[in-house]
Amino acid sequence: MSHVPYKIDHLGVAVQSIEETLPTYTNGIGLKVIHEEIIEDQMVRAIFLQVGDSCVELLEPTSPESPIAKYIEKKGQGIHHIAYAVQDVQAALDHAKAQGLRLIDEQPRRGGHGKLIGFVHPKDTHGVLTEFCQSIEEEEE
Amino acid sequence: MSHVPYKIDHLGVAVQSIEETLPTYTNGIGLKVIHEEIIEDQMVRAIFLQVGDSCVELLEPTSPESPIAKYIEKKGQGIHHIAYAVQDVQAALDHAKAQGLRLIDEQPRRGGHGKLIGFVHPKDTHGVLTEFCQSIEEEEE
Repeated sequence: MSHVPYKIDHLGVAVQSIEETLPTYTNGIGLKVIHEEIIEDQMVRAIFLQVGDSCVELLEPTSPESPIAKYIEKKGQGIHHIAYAVQDVQAALDHAKAQGLRLIDEQPRRGGHGKLIGFVHPKDTHGVLTEFCQSIEEEEE
Repeated sequence: MSHVPYKIDHLGVAVQSIEETLPTYTNGIGLKVIHEEIIEDQMVRAIFLQVGDSCVELLEPTSPESPIAKYIEKKGQGIHHIAYAVQDVQAALDHAKAQGLRLIDEQPRRGGHGKLIGFVHPKDTHGVLTEFCQSIEEEEE
């Protein structure tokens, strides 16, 4: 059942400023930063904080044109999406589509942190932007 | 370090109707229901879906006075809170407070699914309502 999620891979959190937000997650909540990158095509800087087998991914827009900048403008800062880890993103997208869910991505594309990703359309997930993701590289940590 | 989160315990998702939402999570995404209950003091019906060591908790208001009903009215359906599992909720609340975060709960209280819970104030977590929780009963599943 390669389409079935086996864990929460990460939660994407839209923030105006990683610099201002990070101490809340490290000092206040007690999480550790394990990875950081710029995701060019999403125009975001991303910081990954580990919690068990999952991550919290802080997403700061690097441009006013970033989807994250537009999200913050419309909805404010907050949890932007949930990403489920699956063995096969294409299978998860195909399965969701066969069950009547519209997709943002018909095929997987390259996401942050060395993953293949694909999004279901939020109109069919009751306001929760939902991502499937699959590791395609060895973790560097 | 009993205050440090060791996993994402659950994600609380505010929904207007569990009946309408559930097929998306079971058929579409592929999760399984493991628990269901009415949480009287929150005026919600809760359905827990398992994903790895974590859960997605669908929350449907049972009264227009429910905090979840008010959340949906103001913000729409969507991810309402993140709950981190810790060994000691009181220690996690105390630690967060010592680090300068305001709290909703100075002391733990009884939450759903046999847990002790406590919330940090969302004004200090950049729009993300944040809960610590601790198991106090054997899991019934």
